[in-house]
Amino acid sequence: MSGLFRSRLAKGFDDRAARFHTSVAEDLRIFEDDIDGTEAHDIMLHEQGVIPLDALRLILSALEEIRAEWRQGEAEVGPEFEDIHEYIEARVIGKVGVEAGGMMHTGRSRNDQVMVDVRLRVREDLLEAAERVLDLVAALMDQAERHSETLMMLYTHGQHAQVGTFAHYLTAYADALLRDFQRLMECYARVNRNPLGAGPAGGTSFDIDRGRTAELLGFDGLVENSIDATSGRDWAVEAAAVCAILMSGLSRAAADLITWSTAEFGYVELADEYASSSSILPQKKNPSTLELIRGKAGEASGALAELLTMVKGVSSGYYQDLQGTKPPLWRCLDAVNASLEVMAGVVSTLSVNEERMREVAEGSPAVAVDLAEGLVEAGGLSFREAYRLVAALAKEALDGGLGLRDLKPADVAEASLRVLGKRIEVDEAFIEDATDPRSSLLRRRSRGSPNPREAERMIVERRRRLKEHMALLEGRRSAVEAAKERLRKAVEGYLSG
Amino acid sequence: MSGLFRSRLAKGFDDRAARFHTSVAEDLRIFEDDIDGTEAHDIMLHEQGVIPLDALRLILSALEEIRAEWRQGEAEVGPEFEDIHEYIEARVIGKVGVEAGGMMHTGRSRNDQVMVDVRLRVREDLLEAAERVLDLVAALMDQAERHSETLMMLYTHGQHAQVGTFAHYLTAYADALLRDFQRLMECYARVNRNPLGAGPAGGTSFDIDRGRTAELLGFDGLVENSIDATSGRDWAVEAAAVCAILMSGLSRAAADLITWSTAEFGYVELADEYASSSSILPQKKNPSTLELIRGKAGEASGALAELLTMVKGVSSGYYQDLQGTKPPLWRCLDAVNASLEVMAGVVSTLSVNEERMREVAEGSPAVAVDLAEGLVEAGGLSFREAYRLVAALAKEALDGGLGLRDLKPADVAEASLRVLGKRIEVDEAFIEDATDPRSSLLRRRSRGSPNPREAERMIVERRRRLKEHMALLEGRRSAVEAAKERLRKAVEGYLSG
Amino acid sequence: MSGLFRSRLAKGFDDRAARFHTSVAEDLRIFEDDIDGTEAHDIMLHEQGVIPLDALRLILSALEEIRAEWRQGEAEVGPEFEDIHEYIEARVIGKVGVEAGGMMHTGRSRNDQVMVDVRLRVREDLLEAAERVLDLVAALMDQAERHSETLMMLYTHGQHAQVGTFAHYLTAYADALLRDFQRLMECYARVNRNPLGAGPAGGTSFDIDRGRTAELLGFDGLVENSIDATSGRDWAVEAAAVCAILMSGLSRAAADLITWSTAEFGYVELADEYASSSSILPQKKNPSTLELIRGKAGEASGALAELLTMVKGVSSGYYQDLQGTKPPLWRCLDAVNASLEVMAGVVSTLSVNEERMREVAEGSPAVAVDLAEGLVEAGGLSFREAYRLVAALAKEALDGGLGLRDLKPADVAEASLRVLGKRIEVDEAFIEDATDPRSSLLRRRSRGSPNPREAERMIVERRRRLKEHMALLEGRRSAVEAAKERLRKAVEGYLSG
Amino acid sequence: MSGLFRSRLAKGFDDRAARFHTSVAEDLRIFEDDIDGTEAHDIMLHEQGVIPLDALRLILSALEEIRAEWRQGEAEVGPEFEDIHEYIEARVIGKVGVEAGGMMHTGRSRNDQVMVDVRLRVREDLLEAAERVLDLVAALMDQAERHSETLMMLYTHGQHAQVGTFAHYLTAYADALLRDFQRLMECYARVNRNPLGAGPAGGTSFDIDRGRTAELLGFDGLVENSIDATSGRDWAVEAAAVCAILMSGLSRAAADLITWSTAEFGYVELADEYASSSSILPQKKNPSTLELIRGKAGEASGALAELLTMVKGVSSGYYQDLQGTKPPLWRCLDAVNASLEVMAGVVSTLSVNEERMREVAEGSPAVAVDLAEGLVEAGGLSFREAYRLVAALAKEALDGGLGLRDLKPADVAEASLRVLGKRIEVDEAFIEDATDPRSSLLRRRSRGSPNPREAERMIVERRRRLKEHMALLEGRRSAVEAAKERLRKAVEGYLSG
Repeated sequence: MSGLFRSRLAKGFDDRAARFHTSVAEDLRIFEDDIDGTEAHDIMLHEQGVIPLDALRLILSALEEIRAEWRQGEAEVGPEFEDIHEYIEARVIGKVGVEAGGMMHTGRSRNDQVMVDVRLRVREDLLEAAERVLDLVAALMDQAERHSETLMMLYTHGQHAQVGTFAHYLTAYADALLRDFQRLMECYARVNRNPLGAGPAGGTSFDIDRGRTAELLGFDGLVENSIDATSGRDWAVEAAAVCAILMSGLSRAAADLITWSTAEFGYVELADEYASSSSILPQKKNPSTLELIRGKAGEASGALAELLTMVKGVSSGYYQDLQGTKPPLWRCLDAVNASLEVMAGVVSTLSVNEERMREVAEGSPAVAVDLAEGLVEAGGLSFREAYRLVAALAKEALDGGLGLRDLKPADVAEASLRVLGKRIEVDEAFIEDATDPRSSLLRRRSRGSPNPREAERMIVERRRRLKEHMALLEGRRSAVEAAKERLRKAVEGYLSG
Repeated sequence: MSGLFRSRLAKGFDDRAARFHTSVAEDLRIFEDDIDGTEAHDIMLHEQGVIPLDALRLILSALEEIRAEWRQGEAEVGPEFEDIHEYIEARVIGKVGVEAGGMMHTGRSRNDQVMVDVRLRVREDLLEAAERVLDLVAALMDQAERHSETLMMLYTHGQHAQVGTFAHYLTAYADALLRDFQRLMECYARVNRNPLGAGPAGGTSFDIDRGRTAELLGFDGLVENSIDATSGRDWAVEAAAVCAILMSGLSRAAADLITWSTAEFGYVELADEYASSSSILPQKKNPSTLELIRGKAGEASGALAELLTMVKGVSSGYYQDLQGTKPPLWRCLDAVNASLEVMAGVVSTLSVNEERMREVAEGSPAVAVDLAEGLVEAGGLSFREAYRLVAALAKEALDGGLGLRDLKPADVAEASLRVLGKRIEVDEAFIEDATDPRSSLLRRRSRGSPNPREAERMIVERRRRLKEHMALLEGRRSAVEAAKERLRKAVEGYLSG
Repeated sequence: MSGLFRSRLAKGFDDRAARFHTSVAEDLRIFEDDIDGTEAHDIMLHEQGVIPLDALRLILSALEEIRAEWRQGEAEVGPEFEDIHEYIEARVIGKVGVEAGGMMHTGRSRNDQVMVDVRLRVREDLLEAAERVLDLVAALMDQAERHSETLMMLYTHGQHAQVGTFAHYLTAYADALLRDFQRLMECYARVNRNPLGAGPAGGTSFDIDRGRTAELLGFDGLVENSIDATSGRDWAVEAAAVCAILMSGLSRAAADLITWSTAEFGYVELADEYASSSSILPQKKNPSTLELIRGKAGEASGALAELLTMVKGVSSGYYQDLQGTKPPLWRCLDAVNASLEVMAGVVSTLSVNEERMREVAEGSPAVAVDLAEGLVEAGGLSFREAYRLVAALAKEALDGGLGLRDLKPADVAEASLRVLGKRIEVDEAFIEDATDPRSSLLRRRSRGSPNPREAERMIVERRRRLKEHMALLEGRRSAVEAAKERLRKAVEGYLSG
Repeated sequence: MSGLFRSRLAKGFDDRAARFHTSVAEDLRIFEDDIDGTEAHDIMLHEQGVIPLDALRLILSALEEIRAEWRQGEAEVGPEFEDIHEYIEARVIGKVGVEAGGMMHTGRSRNDQVMVDVRLRVREDLLEAAERVLDLVAALMDQAERHSETLMMLYTHGQHAQVGTFAHYLTAYADALLRDFQRLMECYARVNRNPLGAGPAGGTSFDIDRGRTAELLGFDGLVENSIDATSGRDWAVEAAAVCAILMSGLSRAAADLITWSTAEFGYVELADEYASSSSILPQKKNPSTLELIRGKAGEASGALAELLTMVKGVSSGYYQDLQGTKPPLWRCLDAVNASLEVMAGVVSTLSVNEERMREVAEGSPAVAVDLAEGLVEAGGLSFREAYRLVAALAKEALDGGLGLRDLKPADVAEASLRVLGKRIEVDEAFIEDATDPRSSLLRRRSRGSPNPREAERMIVERRRRLKEHMALLEGRRSAVEAAKERLRKAVEGYLSG
């Protein structure tokens, strides 16, 4: 270790301890965030009269040099540094000396510094995720529009349940994703707050202005209490939880599409760009993209479990345990963003075998519930009576290798007498209509049902919501961009001034 | 199994399969919710002309009888029932016959029925948790008020970091809890929506009014898409995640208080009502209440992991896997509510040993950062220079068995020359002031610091927020109560009418 | 709380704290184990001269009375007791007075007492699980024997991979379960050791004989170090891990069978005794038993996560956090035992649609790999060349709506020239043979392949292993039973003596 | 993607899908294992007459060149490759052409290939972990030897429980680690088996010899069934579980040492090489190494949860979900190995403040249990009576600011009369002896107690076991090394032949 902060200790780290300690690998993700945070802090320090103009200029110029080195891939941050914070400070001091460079962290600790960096980064990742969620919803709605009349079996327990449409199925996932969007934005509101100025745990005697750094960094307010600001990680666990919930939903959609890609179902086929083949089985076309997405639900859940176990029972005030919260956070945010992106591609390019879907629907006993509902009205039965009657009819038909469409009025009359003790008379037209999947679909009247009219209404409504959400997201993004611009201009002002 | 729904199958359940299947134990929690949901559904059915008045009356009277049996502990729901839904329907039909009783689930499946029940119940649990959060915040603020000047060491890495106050510590947890409150209410908004009317997966052809059942049950809107309504469990996982995050925070506060209850720290002592003793060690007074709370963080995390694993990759549409989502949900909501209640008791009755806290603060080298900050101003040093100087002084003092308060101006002058190559002159008054924990505390100027003036301001502000939140919560509760009253009156109207 | 152990504290538990504290509910499972443990301890104490004969007799008679009350359902253990240990001691003292009854826990603490009880119980549960594993393996082998020639598609990525047999599939799960058996028995060896005599944390000055209690209780040795004996929970976490791994395997087999129960696959049908129907869809036959098993994989994983989170970072020596380790342990052991039992029933009673399986196999392009392997020999190609050639042939055939069986020698010749730059000549017989699923199966030569001869050999070998394992298990059980008998006789001896 | 295996598909991967798919990053860890596995496979193929000598030589020479490139850091494996398997095959074909190079994977799929590689690697990691466990046990025993008479308080609930020794504490962790060693070796036995020859799922028609590749690669047997060999992941989950259990134990030891490093306890001090300081608090010496270890318990638990969630419910046969099992496996094996290494360093270099430990022990009421035990004998009381008497005495003493050592015979006589209704007479010598921590320690007679004689016996016995385990481990290592040597020689033989 370079030892910038080890004046108190007689010996350097043991080599193995140094490798064990360093967080340099996971810190690379917050390299520029760290520079931004320091620039904002130091500008504020100067504005408040804590550090002089010339020192500020030296620090800012050194930081901008380091940023340039980083962008050109020239920053060499080895494990001899505990973290990038030590690296950057050592490098600034190396460039401009300890008199000026030594001022850069006046009134500040690594504890609030790291919290700033991580929050700045997670903020970006959450906004990206929110945008990708909306992109995926848009892709779902595009497919849904094409398939609002595409008959498809709805399943429960993997068994034929009711006739529906592919559009209706897609809309269900759009709705779940819109809740994910809400959760992302609500989490964002707790993440995008300024911890800077909390000191190691109890603030500082320098006359700092926390509101000013919040403004320069685009934070929407403070994490006020200094212990809370440095020690709290609930917001990070929440971000992971939001990711895990989102991925859990995606894993279910992926499972559906994987099953529907089997030869036996044959409902959908992934575009070649999203499928893989086999090293030994030349005929294979594997929906491996979806399999990976399903697996990544485990990655996000695992990251969440890691965070919860890590944080559990850790006393207040920063402990090094919490250093370990960064990697799982990066991991689950990455899993979410990559999965959403790929899923949108899969959905947009998916081939749908409408004919196969219709064929299954038409041969299915799933119209039984429609028949039962019809019998309530036609036969004056209570639903449970109609249910019993249809169950008996279904059992006999299936045992005889027939479908419900093959029923005759006499079957109904005879079975009702046997099962319910009363004779129910219906005509052939009734049976034909009640067991036709398309007319059964058109008879659905409840709000939110797969009736194509309802599906179309819902698509329109989701598109409207998409627009609203996009605007909300745009607003958040602009606020962040405006702050970045403000900071950049301030830095340039001092450097050129 | 009683076999109400097994008309299709030739044989009853195998005994072992029946015991394996039944969810009766976990369903008891939603017994009355199930009755409420059915009453609302059937009233709507009647209003819509789907079922006649006399049938409605019979059903409602049977349901009210069953409710009364339940309240008197007379409902015997054995494992021969798959669940309480089957029990209640069988009992209604037993009481009023299948012609009327068989109408009670017209246009409805167990899938949307269960979702109604669970959402009604989780809604109550979330409101209770939200209220207990506010109670605990209130208890924290009461203690904080008493201790806004109680010097206490702030720790990082378990080591003395900075001087603070006990009030400041308590406020940190109040702030974390206020975020838990937000999460609970945001989750509530997604939970308190009406899934009723979704049918098994694809709605119904009966002319139902989903808005009306929402109104009668106090839901704030619909879970519109019928697949989403029956198949989605993100809201349940979210509720568990909110619980796990909350418990994770409590576990850290519990860990602090457990450590501070040791003889070695001696900062606090639990009231006898919240401590236990030993079966073999007569002198023991154990902070076991806090230990249980810390352990329950594991319970909530485990419940969340259970839900995420369970839901992962399950295809859309109801699968019996999802039956297993109820027990972990109950478990973590119970863990949260019990823990919050007991924690508020612990906090309210806690003895604080102010003298011991002050004694530790006064003997501590934690004023080093204050000394360093003072030297920046007094000695014209950059912070990193001052840090190095103080680190050297601290090392020497500690090695010599002395405290920082024992430093002499000459020590500073000599060490600065050696370490920084420049001689820094300060007087005794400077050292005395800079190393006095109380004046160091009073010099803290940053917003959110433990400076007593800042602590007092924050307490006032948190009390204001408490009031606002209480009002918000009250609003939610009133809306729910009003709906219950509406439903009760409607039922009574039909029964007496 | 009854307050047996609260002499030191001035006040009783707060009511809420008492409810929060009590572990009575989860303790009922170890009620008799607790009696056994105490009897063994007290007999040893008497043998060592620590307690007199008359006291021993009084204690033993009281304990046997309490055991009888318990068996008759007359023990009323309310939440006023911290746990059943307090209940039983209070009841013994109530029956025989504190002079004699007060001796029952001489040289012993609740910490080692609870560990004895839980280990005795988990030992039984592990043996039960081990036995059920072997039962399930036997059921798998019975089915496998019937299906060693039943052609079935093997899938990778859900796509047709290679032709296999149903027996081969079943054997794969038998093999996995035999590893579960090993893990259960290895865990058993760590569980079945005696912690008694460890005292609260540091032993006792009474002249106890830990080997003797081990003998009376059937433990295979000591958990020697007294801190380790009372504070370690690795064995409990391990038991949960073994359960979670086992359930994870079952969940995969369940997923296969659920998919194969769909109308679209139609490979298998559960017996009615293991299926459920629907409350609204009369035609349904749901493989709900398997869905529950799959879900219970979440239950076991969650229990493991709970334990790991709970135990993490808890300082050494008993902490009340660890009280919470019992419920997840019970939960996952129950999940395993119930799931194994039901799974064996499902497997034994499963209908297999051999015709449908064969039909799918015969129409499948999965013989492509067999064709490629054949071309290596027949055409003198390297495998990668043959692979490329077959991939091209497969693509063309599939694009043209044909199967591989429709290939002509000319197609091969032409494609090989185009793809590999060399002309490969094969005759019709070659193609016919290479693309026939049954002959392809018979050509498999590798050890462990689905070649029926290999399958039969493997079944015989597994049956042999089953017998060995059964004997091993029987040995463990007898040792435990012998110890129980020893203890019972000793108790009777004292009571009648 | 390079597309080696995509002949069947018309289009390449979408760019985003390619980045999403590639496992190149996590595969680097198995680069050489992959080469070893292929060499063994191809040598066997040649020995069996499946591939000719000249092709074998070309392949082996290409593989050795690639190995050399890799070792010199010259292998450039970009995300255009799905994985390193594709990279290596493409590179071999590039070097020696498809006629020879295309033979390298004859009779083999990526599914069994990857399983070989991962098992070879995990085997090494497990052996390394086992060795580090023994190293840490040795370090614990060395410290224990120095401290077999070092009085130290034993805690339960964080409160003083009984007097013990530091050696006794250290031995408790040694014993737990020896169980970890067992688990590692038992897991090893399931890991170190040969899956090669399983083909994609159902074996191959080439005349391969699976026993021969097992021999060349040092596997102790086969994973026989071809579905089990390619699809099972229980052994990987088990490895993670073993890691998580081990880390859970380390986290508890770390928590103890962190608490004991506080100024308030002052029992131990980490060597500077294992401590860190602060960027702002110059006086700090943080036990951050231990904090990281504690945090890494979360990393291992999270990896296990990830694996369990990922694997849950995935149908049999390889699915791409399972690709995701590698990273968590690497992560938790690394966490274990790094943590064990650093922990051994911490333990070896730890400063123990014996004086502070003794001082706490001497001032403690923890001798109460010793006093109670003494009174059983001296006063003829039952233990519960003695407990009550001492509890009353302890309460009075503590309330009066006194210790138990200040008790007078009259106090005992008076309290016994009041509490028990009988007057117990003891003399001053009895009290002095009973309340002296050192004599209390020497009176402990139970096996496994902290009595120094017992501690010394246990240390000797653990050292003996260490030796045995070391020999066992050495045996495993030699077998692996011998196989490696065998393979290397065989390769050299062909290349030079």
